[in-house]
Amino acid sequence: MSLTLVVANKGYSSWSFRAFILMRHFAIPFDEIAIALGEEQTRANILKYSPSARCPALIDGDLVIWDSLAILEYLAEIYPDIPVWPRARDARAIARALAAEMHSGFQPLRVHLPMNMRRAVKRRELTPEAAADVARIEAAWSDARQRFGAGGDFLFGGFSAADAMFAPVVNRLHIYDVPVGAATRAYMDAVMALPAYRNWQKDAVSETWRVAKYEEV
Amino acid sequence: MSLTLVVANKGYSSWSFRAFILMRHFAIPFDEIAIALGEEQTRANILKYSPSARCPALIDGDLVIWDSLAILEYLAEIYPDIPVWPRARDARAIARALAAEMHSGFQPLRVHLPMNMRRAVKRRELTPEAAADVARIEAAWSDARQRFGAGGDFLFGGFSAADAMFAPVVNRLHIYDVPVGAATRAYMDAVMALPAYRNWQKDAVSETWRVAKYEEV
Repeated sequence: MSLTLVVANKGYSSWSFRAFILMRHFAIPFDEIAIALGEEQTRANILKYSPSARCPALIDGDLVIWDSLAILEYLAEIYPDIPVWPRARDARAIARALAAEMHSGFQPLRVHLPMNMRRAVKRRELTPEAAADVARIEAAWSDARQRFGAGGDFLFGGFSAADAMFAPVVNRLHIYDVPVGAATRAYMDAVMALPAYRNWQKDAVSETWRVAKYEEV
Repeated sequence: MSLTLVVANKGYSSWSFRAFILMRHFAIPFDEIAIALGEEQTRANILKYSPSARCPALIDGDLVIWDSLAILEYLAEIYPDIPVWPRARDARAIARALAAEMHSGFQPLRVHLPMNMRRAVKRRELTPEAAADVARIEAAWSDARQRFGAGGDFLFGGFSAADAMFAPVVNRLHIYDVPVGAATRAYMDAVMALPAYRNWQKDAVSETWRVAKYEEV
């Protein structure tokens, strides 16, 4: 099988990052098409691939899957030997609840602290709403790790789709120097040390994705 | 197994409706806890069950699943004989993409045309952003039905989690008398004719959920 992942600007496209980090982490082979944001043709370029006009989109032959969470579920199905989700049913249910909470929520955090892979670390004060999101995220991570995280550095032990969904949040908490507890910091450090995380960040900083490595649209 | 579904006010809680309609449609047995909205104790009442302070939540023994989409995935796992998702892999991938697009998106539609199971039909003019959402939804429904809908009245033929995710949108398009194409209208009529849809609507209108049928919180 031959997969193609359509991503937007790696500096800023948090949804694209979610699919990318999971695929790279688990060494799932794919071609990549990268689309620049903020240009006159951006929407038309994305619509060539994604009917919702959003990135990421995963292309597998005639099939186009245009949402990050649906992509993760599809990868879990076509690669049953890869632990995209935790193997235990209870852990998997909670991992999906966390992933879905991220998928639909935390709007204040997303607006106030946008992902930016090219930004230097600099404190930004939180709005009360963003602070409430951070508190909820720290509680949710802590709960997952206490119940299911034994034997690994990630939310459910080994890296899973739940971590992929929160990888952009790790960037946000880091670059805006958000005060967090020691356990949260340790988790963030583990995520940022992943080769797949560094791969994306390096691409974003160097902009290699725009000039050489990937197909220009 | 014994499942409990925690829902909020049936007149207005679109997320609760999604889990409810699927469980009722497929005759999955469950107890229900209904929580009134807009009261001083609402948030505290929801937090008794749901760590994200949102409804719905599904309780299965010690396990609490606090998101609508994660609940649908869990039901698909524990009831493998029920076609929660379409059986064909391609159709299932597209159903999940549609469900996820609804889960994270269509904010203008959701804000401008809130679900209201007790409202009489009355035209509300659309904002340009809400009109764009409606156009995208009609296109997505049409695409799903043309590719996968043969042999049934729903997006993927038989009723599935994708229809459950869009059931509140059917209410919105109906009560605000949104101009839609004939195919969209036929689909809406099929959804509104479902006994599970009528069950929820009847509960919402009669407010039986507040006084007799379900546990008061």
